[in-house]
Amino acid sequence: MDAAEFRRRGKEMVDHVADYLEKIEERPVYPDVEPGYLRSLIPTEAPVEPDSYEDIMKDVERVIMPGITHWHSPNFFAYFPAASSYPAMLADMLCSAIGCIGFSWAASPACTELETVMLDWLGKMLQLPECFLAGTHGHGGGVIQGTASEATLVSLLAARCKAIRRVQLLDPKKSEAEILSKLVAYTSEQAHSSVERAALIGAVMMKKVPTDSLYAVRGEMLKKILEEDKAAGLIPFYFCATLGTTPSCAFDHIADLGPLCNQENMWMHIDAAYAGSAFICPEFRPLLNGVEYADSFNFNPHKWMLINFDCSAMWVKKRTDIIGAFKMEPLYLKHENQESGLVTDYRHWQIPLGRRFRSLKMWFVFRMYGLQGLQAHIRKGTNELNQSLLKKITKSREIHLVPCQLSGSFVLRLAICSRSTEFRHIQQAWQHITQLAFELLQEHHH
Amino acid sequence: MDAAEFRRRGKEMVDHVADYLEKIEERPVYPDVEPGYLRSLIPTEAPVEPDSYEDIMKDVERVIMPGITHWHSPNFFAYFPAASSYPAMLADMLCSAIGCIGFSWAASPACTELETVMLDWLGKMLQLPECFLAGTHGHGGGVIQGTASEATLVSLLAARCKAIRRVQLLDPKKSEAEILSKLVAYTSEQAHSSVERAALIGAVMMKKVPTDSLYAVRGEMLKKILEEDKAAGLIPFYFCATLGTTPSCAFDHIADLGPLCNQENMWMHIDAAYAGSAFICPEFRPLLNGVEYADSFNFNPHKWMLINFDCSAMWVKKRTDIIGAFKMEPLYLKHENQESGLVTDYRHWQIPLGRRFRSLKMWFVFRMYGLQGLQAHIRKGTNELNQSLLKKITKSREIHLVPCQLSGSFVLRLAICSRSTEFRHIQQAWQHITQLAFELLQEHHH
Repeated sequence: MDAAEFRRRGKEMVDHVADYLEKIEERPVYPDVEPGYLRSLIPTEAPVEPDSYEDIMKDVERVIMPGITHWHSPNFFAYFPAASSYPAMLADMLCSAIGCIGFSWAASPACTELETVMLDWLGKMLQLPECFLAGTHGHGGGVIQGTASEATLVSLLAARCKAIRRVQLLDPKKSEAEILSKLVAYTSEQAHSSVERAALIGAVMMKKVPTDSLYAVRGEMLKKILEEDKAAGLIPFYFCATLGTTPSCAFDHIADLGPLCNQENMWMHIDAAYAGSAFICPEFRPLLNGVEYADSFNFNPHKWMLINFDCSAMWVKKRTDIIGAFKMEPLYLKHENQESGLVTDYRHWQIPLGRRFRSLKMWFVFRMYGLQGLQAHIRKGTNELNQSLLKKITKSREIHLVPCQLSGSFVLRLAICSRSTEFRHIQQAWQHITQLAFELLQEHHH
Repeated sequence: MDAAEFRRRGKEMVDHVADYLEKIEERPVYPDVEPGYLRSLIPTEAPVEPDSYEDIMKDVERVIMPGITHWHSPNFFAYFPAASSYPAMLADMLCSAIGCIGFSWAASPACTELETVMLDWLGKMLQLPECFLAGTHGHGGGVIQGTASEATLVSLLAARCKAIRRVQLLDPKKSEAEILSKLVAYTSEQAHSSVERAALIGAVMMKKVPTDSLYAVRGEMLKKILEEDKAAGLIPFYFCATLGTTPSCAFDHIADLGPLCNQENMWMHIDAAYAGSAFICPEFRPLLNGVEYADSFNFNPHKWMLINFDCSAMWVKKRTDIIGAFKMEPLYLKHENQESGLVTDYRHWQIPLGRRFRSLKMWFVFRMYGLQGLQAHIRKGTNELNQSLLKKITKSREIHLVPCQLSGSFVLRLAICSRSTEFRHIQQAWQHITQLAFELLQEHHH
């Protein structure tokens, strides 16, 4: 395929992509296939001579589509949102074309520098404390990881390295293996499985901290375990807090936990993978209070910020902590600007060596939507929409409700009032409300 | 941006991509910028209201391009080739549109199943032993990792887990920490820095094995160290062989090393990141002999097989080894087909949880090129081309050479013969040969 054919096929593909997304609602969201369905639909070996492009595209519909779980269908409510937007897709096309592997500054300066600046832009949108930003003289800064799991692992490894060095400084006779066997990491019993997995990979003990009745970890709960563990000769070194747990969206109390971690010389990492995008709205930002005590913070713009996977944003307060845990400098990766201190070599910040030019899609999305557009995407509903819904409910005269105000939000309150109300009345009321809400949203979109 | 605008902008982007790649030779391959150049060219914060798309595309040329190291320029000879082809780019556009996150079979069956079958296709192209293929009843199989570094790490972690279990089975009183402190991994002193880094992450000792005069590890060299280490009470558990080292393309002697590793209960991983693509040509396949002793094998189609980054192919003989090292099963990731044994959940095979639909680009490339097309890309030059070069040299009458045959290749041999030959004569001869070769290739391409 030469450039001329790519021009033709590429334009067809653009239409194909737009058609797919415009008509996605017509497809069944979850595929009706049995495990192993695909193997029998295609040859057992690669063709020796080329197939035609037409045949391949026919097979996309015949072989692939029947086995797709359509994450961008409006009927998809499983797992979590996979962000997607047209500007991000355009940027990814450009990223494929440039095709640089940005493991060091020299491997493509724009790839590294745009990433640093985009993470500063995004940090400012979240009102992260200054110390997390790179700026021109900062000690912190941001990096794009592939997934939140990798961000957790990277922070745990950095913390492990820092803890071993700290203990050895106090007691140089202690071997690394001895210290390692005493290190303990902590997280909520509600934390994502990837946190426990990070400890498994890092070969350190991990303990689950019990939560309160709202599934959140509080300072006193961690403190109690720390006292016991320290008394038993263990070395607490890392706590992973979650803002928005997977099962119930619980928020650990980082404003209490942070000072405790700081005092105990423990690294606090905050995982806000899904919820984090919301902090660009001032009304949700208080949920991030306490981040100033953290050593690292992470959330996934590829979940709720319109940037296609993979794009997990991570910030650290001291970039030397994270670089120190991984740095390897073979001659073939050295370049003359390396020692200047001005240069970021992102390969020291992550598990893989290679990396794509992922900040391009951040840049396109931030600019095409603007902060206001992104905030509108997070908020989706408005007070006005809720007011209209209440008007519709009142006008239809089937049920009766009154509203209230909660932290600036117009809220519809449903109280079970009458002695004669039965379960079926509540069910019917709920059905009625959702039906009217559905109609309202339909009108709103057209 | 709605679908209609995406159709327009997408088609413009296709032309932009084709223009970029068609005229890439006109751009300086290495950028002339100082560290920090980019920050001053763009605002310090994200725009509050949207920018126009035209402004963004203007800024691609103004801000990004001056800082790009053009990996696809024909003048790029640094690091390694970053594979790229139009079919792979088309497939990536489709991948962005589908935008599924394939961490489990249920999360998108086609994403998982196409990957398993493509790795079987590729394994057959390489003539990998049957035991590495998934087939319908195999115990092995392949997975797409992001990078070779991740494949190395995953294999080391699987080996670590297996070794700890094996030692504990023999001696249940030994603690995990105690075993961990005795485990030793080995690799060539010429191996890539990511191998040492994997040991650092996995918290195990790593020893560098000396190489022979051609920079390759031989069986007896490893054997000697193993004897010493075992006598000292250490537990050898992992050896990472390299086929094609980064500095000199040395090939470790896997046909000797493999049986030794098997006998010592050590996991042998083979890293052929760059060289591996060549094994699809029968004349290069003997270099892979000995792979039958390995537990895992990896190479990067994103280097030399026309598939854009990221696409690192890894196979294991026993998939239970790799899954066993990572498996975590929270309820929210369970699905009803999980226990059937037919289903692959690739999240257990890798470090991140999320993953893109990367096998699509393999499928497009394998089908659009066919095995013959891929082999032709690896071979590039032919015996006929070398013969033509010699004819040209002979015809021009400036220097005189004779050819020879080496393993089926037509080779030009330059012997320093005359008593009066000085260094300048050799330089001139070399200049002359490269000039004629350049002219020949120009004629050949037009």
